[in-house]
Amino acid sequence: MRTSYFRYFPDKREVLFAGSERMPPALAEAVLAADPALTPLAAALDALARVGTQLVEQVADIAERQAVIDASPELQERERTKAAAITAAIRDGLKQRQVTADTAELVAQLATVAFQNAFRHWIATAGQADFRRCLHMVTDDLRAALAGT
Amino acid sequence: MRTSYFRYFPDKREVLFAGSERMPPALAEAVLAADPALTPLAAALDALARVGTQLVEQVADIAERQAVIDASPELQERERTKAAAITAAIRDGLKQRQVTADTAELVAQLATVAFQNAFRHWIATAGQADFRRCLHMVTDDLRAALAGT
Repeated sequence: MRTSYFRYFPDKREVLFAGSERMPPALAEAVLAADPALTPLAAALDALARVGTQLVEQVADIAERQAVIDASPELQERERTKAAAITAAIRDGLKQRQVTADTAELVAQLATVAFQNAFRHWIATAGQADFRRCLHMVTDDLRAALAGT
Repeated sequence: MRTSYFRYFPDKREVLFAGSERMPPALAEAVLAADPALTPLAAALDALARVGTQLVEQVADIAERQAVIDASPELQERERTKAAAITAAIRDGLKQRQVTADTAELVAQLATVAFQNAFRHWIATAGQADFRRCLHMVTDDLRAALAGT
């Protein structure tokens, strides 16, 4: 199985992150395009649901990809760099919606946590779940976690 | 000002992250030692308040340190690696409190976001604020962000 992943890519890192550079600008645009009535986090989650749904439709062997990354400190570092770019894009989109800098940063980080965990949930369902539904579930879990603190 | 930072450290990176390797094990221990009645997030925040309060008392020139890191992609990468170690330590401490793996991961990521933003708030007050109070403020902000999603 694993060899199929790398057959056409001399640099193994590249296939794992192919297309990932398109995600931040798409997200910034989607945050800006979200319904103006939405709260900052709702706008960020709507953008992640739109862009994330496209992403999960395009990426093949996604569970295997995650297993390869999880086993490599070097690839995990790259995954963190990617997550930071996602956070920055959401933050910049929110600022263009006139959200204050502090709130934009906090909400962008929170949305990125929701995205990463929704992605894990989606992988755990072998890609059968609706990605937006996974995001909503994680958002409910985050709200539950904050109760009683 | 800036030169004072590096006078005694041939490797500039080292002074900026001096002592940071002690934080993850201290956090894991503090999570485990937190009141058993606390929710997972409350236990994580209590641990971050304890360890973070010690941290901010020990680190000198913390605003300058942050400015140096913010200006360097390489140091930001190291900062992300440090944050990932903090998340992992909290997650491992929570698992030892019999929290399920999924919840431990989500709560550890959420607590790390709270910690990072509390730290920024603390720096913005020029170190005058109580660190635990900064954490509580950010927790309130997170709860507010999740309302209406």
